[in-house]
Amino acid sequence: MKEQKLTSLVNEMTLDEKIAQLTQLATPFFKGASDGGQITGPMADMGITDEMIENAGSVLGASGAKEVKNIQRKHLEDNRLGIPLLVMSDIVHGYKTIFPVPLGIGCSWDLELAEKSAEIAAKEASASGVHVTFAPMVDLVRDPRWGRVMESTGEDPYLNSEYARAFVRGFQGNDLTTEKDRVAACVKHFAAYGAAEGGRDYNTVDMSERELRENYLPAYQAALDEGCEMVMTAFNTVFGIPATGNKKLMRSILREEMGFDGILISDWGAVKEMIPHGVAEDEKEAALKALTAGVDIEMMTSTYVKYLKALVEEGQLDESLIDEAVQRILTLKEKLGLFENPYRGADEELENEIVMSAAHREASRELAAKSAVLLKNEGVLPLKKDQKVALIGPFAENGDILGPWSWLGSKEDAVTVKEGFLQKIDPSQLAVAKGSDIETITEEQIKEALEAANDADVIVLALGEDSDMSGEAGCRADIKLLGAQLELIQRMKELGKPMVSVLFNGRPLDLHGVWDQTDAVLEAWYPGTEGGAAIADLLFGDRNPSGRLTMSFPYSAGQIPVYYNHFNTGRPKGAPDAQERYVSQYLDIPNSPLFPFGFGLSYTEFTYGGMKLSREKMTCEDSLEISVTVTNSGSVSGEEVVQLYVRDVSGEVVRPLKELKDFEKIKLEPGESKEVSFIIREEQLRYHHSDLTFTSDPGTFIAYIGGNSRDAMEKSFTLLK
Amino acid sequence: MKEQKLTSLVNEMTLDEKIAQLTQLATPFFKGASDGGQITGPMADMGITDEMIENAGSVLGASGAKEVKNIQRKHLEDNRLGIPLLVMSDIVHGYKTIFPVPLGIGCSWDLELAEKSAEIAAKEASASGVHVTFAPMVDLVRDPRWGRVMESTGEDPYLNSEYARAFVRGFQGNDLTTEKDRVAACVKHFAAYGAAEGGRDYNTVDMSERELRENYLPAYQAALDEGCEMVMTAFNTVFGIPATGNKKLMRSILREEMGFDGILISDWGAVKEMIPHGVAEDEKEAALKALTAGVDIEMMTSTYVKYLKALVEEGQLDESLIDEAVQRILTLKEKLGLFENPYRGADEELENEIVMSAAHREASRELAAKSAVLLKNEGVLPLKKDQKVALIGPFAENGDILGPWSWLGSKEDAVTVKEGFLQKIDPSQLAVAKGSDIETITEEQIKEALEAANDADVIVLALGEDSDMSGEAGCRADIKLLGAQLELIQRMKELGKPMVSVLFNGRPLDLHGVWDQTDAVLEAWYPGTEGGAAIADLLFGDRNPSGRLTMSFPYSAGQIPVYYNHFNTGRPKGAPDAQERYVSQYLDIPNSPLFPFGFGLSYTEFTYGGMKLSREKMTCEDSLEISVTVTNSGSVSGEEVVQLYVRDVSGEVVRPLKELKDFEKIKLEPGESKEVSFIIREEQLRYHHSDLTFTSDPGTFIAYIGGNSRDAMEKSFTLLK
Repeated sequence: MKEQKLTSLVNEMTLDEKIAQLTQLATPFFKGASDGGQITGPMADMGITDEMIENAGSVLGASGAKEVKNIQRKHLEDNRLGIPLLVMSDIVHGYKTIFPVPLGIGCSWDLELAEKSAEIAAKEASASGVHVTFAPMVDLVRDPRWGRVMESTGEDPYLNSEYARAFVRGFQGNDLTTEKDRVAACVKHFAAYGAAEGGRDYNTVDMSERELRENYLPAYQAALDEGCEMVMTAFNTVFGIPATGNKKLMRSILREEMGFDGILISDWGAVKEMIPHGVAEDEKEAALKALTAGVDIEMMTSTYVKYLKALVEEGQLDESLIDEAVQRILTLKEKLGLFENPYRGADEELENEIVMSAAHREASRELAAKSAVLLKNEGVLPLKKDQKVALIGPFAENGDILGPWSWLGSKEDAVTVKEGFLQKIDPSQLAVAKGSDIETITEEQIKEALEAANDADVIVLALGEDSDMSGEAGCRADIKLLGAQLELIQRMKELGKPMVSVLFNGRPLDLHGVWDQTDAVLEAWYPGTEGGAAIADLLFGDRNPSGRLTMSFPYSAGQIPVYYNHFNTGRPKGAPDAQERYVSQYLDIPNSPLFPFGFGLSYTEFTYGGMKLSREKMTCEDSLEISVTVTNSGSVSGEEVVQLYVRDVSGEVVRPLKELKDFEKIKLEPGESKEVSFIIREEQLRYHHSDLTFTSDPGTFIAYIGGNSRDAMEKSFTLLK
Repeated sequence: MKEQKLTSLVNEMTLDEKIAQLTQLATPFFKGASDGGQITGPMADMGITDEMIENAGSVLGASGAKEVKNIQRKHLEDNRLGIPLLVMSDIVHGYKTIFPVPLGIGCSWDLELAEKSAEIAAKEASASGVHVTFAPMVDLVRDPRWGRVMESTGEDPYLNSEYARAFVRGFQGNDLTTEKDRVAACVKHFAAYGAAEGGRDYNTVDMSERELRENYLPAYQAALDEGCEMVMTAFNTVFGIPATGNKKLMRSILREEMGFDGILISDWGAVKEMIPHGVAEDEKEAALKALTAGVDIEMMTSTYVKYLKALVEEGQLDESLIDEAVQRILTLKEKLGLFENPYRGADEELENEIVMSAAHREASRELAAKSAVLLKNEGVLPLKKDQKVALIGPFAENGDILGPWSWLGSKEDAVTVKEGFLQKIDPSQLAVAKGSDIETITEEQIKEALEAANDADVIVLALGEDSDMSGEAGCRADIKLLGAQLELIQRMKELGKPMVSVLFNGRPLDLHGVWDQTDAVLEAWYPGTEGGAAIADLLFGDRNPSGRLTMSFPYSAGQIPVYYNHFNTGRPKGAPDAQERYVSQYLDIPNSPLFPFGFGLSYTEFTYGGMKLSREKMTCEDSLEISVTVTNSGSVSGEEVVQLYVRDVSGEVVRPLKELKDFEKIKLEPGESKEVSFIIREEQLRYHHSDLTFTSDPGTFIAYIGGNSRDAMEKSFTLLK
């Protein structure tokens, strides 16, 4: 159906039908759903009529080929014009085959595998009837208190942008019309949701427009550049106005400047939430503000279906804005081929075949292994397969390693650490004890753990946070490991045996009590379905850790926010002429994070040398090549993430000490060397000036190359006028 | 000398003389100083010539009538045109008679006493030869990690504005020309220095321009409205550019919009610090940017004297900008009467008479008593004068209670807590032990403390932070009381006796380990010269505590920032329809601070009733009166701070849950009632809209009256179109 035909379809629709098209309802509203008609709680108060349901434009949270087909079939029976439903779900890091949480994926620095994870999620989801996923989440994050940092790939705008593109490619493929095994992506949360004050979810965001454009918008833009079909609004305020009712943000910045012409959907309930936010007196004003701002679909509240018609009739709202929104929705339905085949990829047989297939699990295992970051290793890892191992801790036999936003994944399908270990060593070599629960510990548990460890050569502690301690609304003011587990570490330490900590969690933690008390620390994140297997691969040396942090690990909660690409200040600590006291510092802790952005160890060592520039001066027209020789100076094969950072020494506004500009992940055999080269062009040196123009300034720059954001070689170069 | 005459004086000056007039040097540069010629360290590297010194416009840090006269006399001998020096010093909360730190003064809610404290400081300073003080500091503060919160009156823009006015009145009096016993004020730090990221001094500030105007600018504006003669730049960036080189901030906002035509001075070294900030390549560019932005005086770096001449000669800088700056400096000298009498108020005899006079000390004692905030009292206070008291802790006999920025005050002159106690009770009733040092504790110290407390009826613990743990560059990531002192509390608790904590410190602390472990907590801040006497007055019931917090006490460092006038969010915790999980909250701590803004206990109780509005609807032309009856329902006389807050229920942008609009401090005898009335006018309901206009919106408002920002009665009213 061409645009013209869609327009004539819009013209055929009554105003009520059009407004209902802008509404998204959960599955229980639909006749064909297995839970159809079970409208309870807040849903019952929405004031939704049968007519609204019959004309609704999309369904939230439906999945499973059989059920989705049934919902669609019944819907089409009732819908006057035969407009199919869009089926949308949160498929964030896997459908049923769960991959590591996105913060873990970020740490892989592996864009191909990231894309593959989205592709696999799309294949499973589309076969199960899903058309659109509410992913990727690309919010820049700097506050580990915030539970949703696990949904982001980290604190860097460039790297987040690369991942945004990879995920969109993976979800959407090349052509949504012909590729029925892909799903439309919905980038979220526009904008700057990651900057919630105090790291408390849904909280106020305030920043300068320059900061928004410089650091927060690039990843959303990258997703749009990659053709992302949808955008979701953020819960927070931007410039003092909730994103969902923010005309400047949505009409001027998102649509006009960033060129987005797809569907803008509210986050869950966010239209009505303008009332508690205090920018709408009632639902009617909320509806008016949201549609005026450009929100096409209202998710899970009913202000549109209740009030848009009256607003049009009273002359407060131009019906053309509604038409425009409907047109966008129908355009996506058309692009997905739903008018030709409303069931699209839904296919029970295919679903059975591919969901949780061995190939998908293997991809998850690989990505889980690449996501884990080795933070410390004092000669204890890798474990030897003839050692006796005590596996202790609340995550020893715990399937809660899928992480938040894995609602279709099943903990029962997850490979636990114990199961992973038993793929490597004989049961006789392994003693297992829980040691503690996540938040509590008993003397009995400690006793069992000490007994289990009594004969062991090495103790592996599987520790972490319950998955609901992060994710949406999963915010913690204290970012240490839970006290019960810190006590477990202390008690196990009494045995004087080598100890390895493996951490399952969704945020950078203050690791005092862990990294200083155990001999090795592996940050496993929530590694997904094959987590235990991947961790065993790493711990027993069948794979070599290659993950690198994409979010700084603070020294303590009192250091928040801490991120690598900060400014120098006028009184930087450690400057040659710095005074002892009057510098920018804390009296009680260092300025540096415990582990910096880009950091991660390997079982081998990489040495850097021979850094050189192809030229020391460049113009805006040419480029320079910067290269370094990296050598695997250890004794095992390994992967290194070679990172290029640039500093603009003097700008019109203050500029970060380092900014990631490029990276390459390379594999080196023992003794092998490789020259890694990067090209620097003027475009990479642009930034937002105080007048918001995005240009570069001539002057001195410093290029850094290294294995993390702290330890790097450097060379200066000049950008000429 | 009239403006015209000053202009002709400027015309007589050579370019070198004019530029030197813009430079401020420390006392060692001047012949007449007791430390004259002792130019060491960074000062020696400034490249200052004798000619520059002879033509310098102002001296930093000189005081003492004899010395200042000597400096001025020698200077005038050398200065070709006989232009006297301006003598400037940091007289922040007292000259030698030290008052409580400003955060303490803030907690008095006593504008008259605040004004009096500045007046006394001015009298002592002016008699000692000072012409200008670098005060008041009116930066809005929300982060207790920042060491300089003790210099501010707190987190509220309205209250800070009232104090700004009071301090300026107190320093400057009515007429600086005729009143030689006053000094010119210099409001600082323009702008938004209090918002340093992470509470780390000198760190980056980023916020929206709307936020800057709404919350941060009002107190500076209030100081200017009161006629404050000078403004000091902040160290931080504003809109990405260091304040000291920020033309938009200084020329457009400060001078054009806010109407400031006085002298703008850089903070210490801040001009040159544009180089490490990364907005100037060298000193020459720094000089150009600072003067272009409108900085008239460069403090303690020498970029102006080294480079302005060349910049003029090269045509990069218009000499008229220099003339304008010189004119402003000469204008203040003229206003201070320095051309007629270059020694102005300097008077050794008067100095001897009034500095640290009994009357000044008494005023300090009164303000110290009014600044202290009683946070908890489980029936243990006031102490009885026939009790046996054990006074334990590192502040028991410690004169370090003057606080930062009291460089002319002497710890030896301070009344310690022990001395204060001995004004109340017989030495035989008092046992004293240190118990611990600030940061360390020994078993020996504990043993002595336990012994001292053995016979006591009650234990008073005098605890806190060293004064250099706050103030400039005094930032702490951990805001708990130091561990040694927490241990002291635990050990003393073993005795099972009633325990009172008295805290000497410069920031809101996380009081876990103190308030939950002792029976009463009195926050004394750094109370100044008469601190121990004032604390004894309160503890023994000769005065009744009446201080109320002007900065929230966080539940923990992980809750920062926490402040009362925050927004509601779209998912407020505790709303009637709120879900259990999906609300804006931390999983592990409450959203509320441990002690809210406006909170403080008394030895009596105040009950509120009969809240009424004169009308429920008002227009922009009329006003409404809101009143409440407050009753002293306890058994002793006491003072209550009756606080009026208003909430704008729905705005064009999100609006705070409560905003302080007025208050009245009243004294009530036992059983006495008083009706307290406030007038609300439309002007008080204005706020900055998204287009930065400052207007009100018609609609619903809620007025709250109560004894703190948490516990208040409420009534709605409507502002009509």
